[in-house]
Amino acid sequence: MTASTPTATLACIVLAAGKGTRMKSDLPKVLHPIANEPMVAHVLRAAAALNPDRVVVVVGPGQEAVAKAVAPHATVLQSQQLGTADAVKAARAALGDFDGDVLVLFGDTPLVRPETLSLLVQARRGAGDPAVAVLGMRPADPAAYGRLVQDEAGGLTKIVEYLDATAEERAIGLCNAGLMAFDGRRLWAILDAIGNANAKGEYYLTDAVAVARAQGHACAVAEGDPADVEGVNSRVELAKLEKLMQARLRRQAMLNGATLADPHTVWFSADTVLGRDVTVGQNVVFGPGVVVEDGVTIRPFCHLEGVVVRREAIIGPYSRLRPGSDIGAGAHIGNFVEVKASTLGNGAKANHLAYVGDADIGEGTNIGAGAITCNYDGTFKYRTQVGRNVFVGTNATLVAPVQVGDGAFIAGGSTITEPVPADALAIGRGRQVVKEGWAAAFATAQKARKAAQKKG
Amino acid sequence: MTASTPTATLACIVLAAGKGTRMKSDLPKVLHPIANEPMVAHVLRAAAALNPDRVVVVVGPGQEAVAKAVAPHATVLQSQQLGTADAVKAARAALGDFDGDVLVLFGDTPLVRPETLSLLVQARRGAGDPAVAVLGMRPADPAAYGRLVQDEAGGLTKIVEYLDATAEERAIGLCNAGLMAFDGRRLWAILDAIGNANAKGEYYLTDAVAVARAQGHACAVAEGDPADVEGVNSRVELAKLEKLMQARLRRQAMLNGATLADPHTVWFSADTVLGRDVTVGQNVVFGPGVVVEDGVTIRPFCHLEGVVVRREAIIGPYSRLRPGSDIGAGAHIGNFVEVKASTLGNGAKANHLAYVGDADIGEGTNIGAGAITCNYDGTFKYRTQVGRNVFVGTNATLVAPVQVGDGAFIAGGSTITEPVPADALAIGRGRQVVKEGWAAAFATAQKARKAAQKKG
Amino acid sequence: MTASTPTATLACIVLAAGKGTRMKSDLPKVLHPIANEPMVAHVLRAAAALNPDRVVVVVGPGQEAVAKAVAPHATVLQSQQLGTADAVKAARAALGDFDGDVLVLFGDTPLVRPETLSLLVQARRGAGDPAVAVLGMRPADPAAYGRLVQDEAGGLTKIVEYLDATAEERAIGLCNAGLMAFDGRRLWAILDAIGNANAKGEYYLTDAVAVARAQGHACAVAEGDPADVEGVNSRVELAKLEKLMQARLRRQAMLNGATLADPHTVWFSADTVLGRDVTVGQNVVFGPGVVVEDGVTIRPFCHLEGVVVRREAIIGPYSRLRPGSDIGAGAHIGNFVEVKASTLGNGAKANHLAYVGDADIGEGTNIGAGAITCNYDGTFKYRTQVGRNVFVGTNATLVAPVQVGDGAFIAGGSTITEPVPADALAIGRGRQVVKEGWAAAFATAQKARKAAQKKG
Repeated sequence: MTASTPTATLACIVLAAGKGTRMKSDLPKVLHPIANEPMVAHVLRAAAALNPDRVVVVVGPGQEAVAKAVAPHATVLQSQQLGTADAVKAARAALGDFDGDVLVLFGDTPLVRPETLSLLVQARRGAGDPAVAVLGMRPADPAAYGRLVQDEAGGLTKIVEYLDATAEERAIGLCNAGLMAFDGRRLWAILDAIGNANAKGEYYLTDAVAVARAQGHACAVAEGDPADVEGVNSRVELAKLEKLMQARLRRQAMLNGATLADPHTVWFSADTVLGRDVTVGQNVVFGPGVVVEDGVTIRPFCHLEGVVVRREAIIGPYSRLRPGSDIGAGAHIGNFVEVKASTLGNGAKANHLAYVGDADIGEGTNIGAGAITCNYDGTFKYRTQVGRNVFVGTNATLVAPVQVGDGAFIAGGSTITEPVPADALAIGRGRQVVKEGWAAAFATAQKARKAAQKKG
Repeated sequence: MTASTPTATLACIVLAAGKGTRMKSDLPKVLHPIANEPMVAHVLRAAAALNPDRVVVVVGPGQEAVAKAVAPHATVLQSQQLGTADAVKAARAALGDFDGDVLVLFGDTPLVRPETLSLLVQARRGAGDPAVAVLGMRPADPAAYGRLVQDEAGGLTKIVEYLDATAEERAIGLCNAGLMAFDGRRLWAILDAIGNANAKGEYYLTDAVAVARAQGHACAVAEGDPADVEGVNSRVELAKLEKLMQARLRRQAMLNGATLADPHTVWFSADTVLGRDVTVGQNVVFGPGVVVEDGVTIRPFCHLEGVVVRREAIIGPYSRLRPGSDIGAGAHIGNFVEVKASTLGNGAKANHLAYVGDADIGEGTNIGAGAITCNYDGTFKYRTQVGRNVFVGTNATLVAPVQVGDGAFIAGGSTITEPVPADALAIGRGRQVVKEGWAAAFATAQKARKAAQKKG
Repeated sequence: MTASTPTATLACIVLAAGKGTRMKSDLPKVLHPIANEPMVAHVLRAAAALNPDRVVVVVGPGQEAVAKAVAPHATVLQSQQLGTADAVKAARAALGDFDGDVLVLFGDTPLVRPETLSLLVQARRGAGDPAVAVLGMRPADPAAYGRLVQDEAGGLTKIVEYLDATAEERAIGLCNAGLMAFDGRRLWAILDAIGNANAKGEYYLTDAVAVARAQGHACAVAEGDPADVEGVNSRVELAKLEKLMQARLRRQAMLNGATLADPHTVWFSADTVLGRDVTVGQNVVFGPGVVVEDGVTIRPFCHLEGVVVRREAIIGPYSRLRPGSDIGAGAHIGNFVEVKASTLGNGAKANHLAYVGDADIGEGTNIGAGAITCNYDGTFKYRTQVGRNVFVGTNATLVAPVQVGDGAFIAGGSTITEPVPADALAIGRGRQVVKEGWAAAFATAQKARKAAQKKG
């Protein structure tokens, strides 16, 4: 949602080939989710906000799952892990004769924001026509990050690794954040000149600055927030970034006019939409695809996915709304109620211990406590159609496919297998029989048996 | 629960007219809740602890909801928002010839404590007979707060706004916290002399100190905790104060002898009462009106409102107790059970997936899994009466109004619509019929149909 | 899981006699749980990792519950609370002529780790054959802790109480953490020489250093983490240590390859075992005795105790798994489902609002929504046996003891009290009857009655 760059062309290369060994997982690292989307999807969304002409994702061998997840974006294979410069080179054929700017991003930095990327591209396009712009940052603890050495005009003269840095260089607060933007016309010549004469024998993108300077080009710096480039190498770091992302999403929801009873216990997906004067209780989980309209109350302990909740509806506590559902205006969904792939009309209610699955429930209809739609016969699933202002009694079982007409009344404890006409009563249950004294005799006998067991 | 001031007279003016635009809400700001009570109610409770003779709440135009919420306290209208001094003047008629002390509070500072108010009133009544006492505070970051300038004896000589302050004044750590106590005999003369020659053209209460000094009166300072006067202007700040309030309530509960498995996941209402040796699991929400006696265990994921839970009862996990309920000593309420407007006798149990609504359940009675009281017929609600030591079977439906006598036994799966005598068995369900081979044939047929569908 | 000390003999004395008045509890202090185990059990586990030859727990009068909890470890009685040195002396008879090393631990420091204890024992066995080794620590705020004064060689010359310390001594960062290791041959002579000429008239173990030095022995220091010796005197401190322990357990789970959606909302027991690529949603509570195999997904709001969850199973949201259960590979347990003392075969499902208690459910069987096993008749509990690939319909009631054969189909709404043969259909419910127009007439009549009530 930031400045796009309509007058110049831009390509984005997303490096996503890392194995992520420390994740101890069979899932490729960049597919581990943050706010219910793969990390790489967050990076691609940030890139998309700049309207790039091309996007290329670099994956490693055996990472078909990554290619599938980022489709329809193009993917190219880095066949051996020979360093970041090598990874960028893997995209050369895919970019062909592209001569705009080339932004290099990392698939494991899901917090990167469009405004940060935009700053970096602008730095590349700034005074002196630099061949490379590097993102800098000032972390609270600069630790062993490489330092960005600048000339008096602010131009970047070199990136010095911490181990190679002098005391004076180590005192520099501006550190290398990793992201770079290149002039596409000069990119490949720079990359081709990067060597691998280092301990690991890898080609490092960091060396692009020294090479560009040696080739007579200027280099530039843009400065961003360290959080934007925090990466993930372990589940502990994954959890840390999830926390930072949630903090952003919670803050935005509150500034937009929602009350969160305890923000630390509301979890959003990246695509959650909340209206104004929405109240969210403690411990509510928003899975993907949730839209909540104005004035809705969501009580504690709710779990929502793939659902539209319309104006003034009241949800929870302990409601589970599953994908494909639409909850009407002013409707109530109560405790221990599951709604799946169902529509509820305006003002409809399902307040207690019900399962509404594959059903269409009309306006003003009341689904009683313990009422359940039986939508599955072991092989097929069927729909249940319930009209307006119907009363579905307690513990009723609606065996789909079945239709219930407007204004009908289904007696408590009934199993409904045949259509119910409008305005009719349907009742399907055993008749009550009473056996006087039976319970007293039974209790006496059972207690005697128990006592005998204990003795015996 | 603090020092009252019985020997002198006190009036409290609570300023509650702010619009709260940044809340992005249709609800007036001071009605946004903290610990399930409107912010202004917290302020009024703190004021009440000082036993004031009069309380006047100043509201803005169209804020009838505030007037209603603070009733029976008197409200007066500030017709235009012309500043805090103007707001206090709106209360003049309501106070009439009151000549005791006048304490000015803010409706959006819900964390203010009686002990802080008391300190301020005492400062007003202290040496030198000051006309005004101002609450000071020493925030960790004094930022742009006004500074309190004191003479050598500790008297207040002026409040200097940050922008007008000299470097020396800015170095003062003691800041203006906003609350003031006035001598009622001199209050109106001071207010009348406050002008509005400032950027916004408003009348600021802060100017009362300069005016009082100019009129030859002494002024005093009391020092309080900055948290006491934290105000709310956005939902983000609302969430912050909720958190601070919850921290206070949790700490107090623990010091009183409750174990909270994870205090950050237990949410109290301002009026929650917990006994000694109460154990509260993770993720428990106490709505308004809950009393929990000694020795009760509340397991994780419970939600309680308007209920008394008696000694040694065991609640949860996943129990929802709703208003008007009384859970007997040693009773058990289990998972996915809702209790609403019902009493359960000592030792009664409802352990699984039950709904007990508008019911009276006797001592020692066992409500089976999935058993539900059907208390509603679409128009009226009815009560269910169940005696002592009754066994209500699994998935039973009790259609109210209905009575079940002591010691009765209701068979699993029964729908009960007629009274059940004491010690009787009641059974109301269909007879089991078995059709040999049917399921195998059905499964074969359905699979064939599915296969045909896939081909076709 | 750390270095044991096989070549030398070791005895551990655990001081557990404290009353814990500030806990405001009837439960002895050391029995208050951390991560679902009594504090003293954590201390004993840490001690056990050193393979001690003897363990003696010192309890106070009336603390039979402590003795029971620590069995089969020996307990001795400290009949009066005369200080820590007196408490150690209470173990003298139990240790008899034991002449190895004697480690003194505290029952209320549940975070103590084996590696810390090992360091202390090694210090006792170090150069100079010290009679006593004391655990030191460098807390962020040394506050009023006693300081450890060392000679140039690092030997311990004295422990000086803060109140008695000179300014120079107070500047020492190394503080007394309380734990001590003694040479058993010299221990009793040292303890016998400790006096009680102090304000409280108690015998302090801290004085052992001065006494040992006076007796001509060397003393040593080992340095540990302050968290290891954090003690508990109130519920507030209990909550703090619980939090620290949970942080340790969460971090370890993540490093082992589990993803925790929000680590702060997952609570472990000390004995929880999680496999690799296990995903745990928000708000999951692991009670004692849970084993989760590789690839399992646990969705939000689950509560597990005493259960094995096998590979690739999917649990939750809102599942409660209770002790004695075994969930098969690839099985699904869904929302508002309780499983107790039951086995579910591979691929079995119970997805909605079901109670599976005292049951054995075969592979591939589907337990319908609202289906419930009725395992209790008010006196006895019985088992339910359900075969493979059975379809148990919606809201079915299975009255135990009952057997259902492989491939059977139980119709929705049925109550099953008799055995169901393999491949058979069982149906036990009332026949549906429809009364046309009844509901419309009923609604009209009820509304009229309601209107009359309002008038009347």
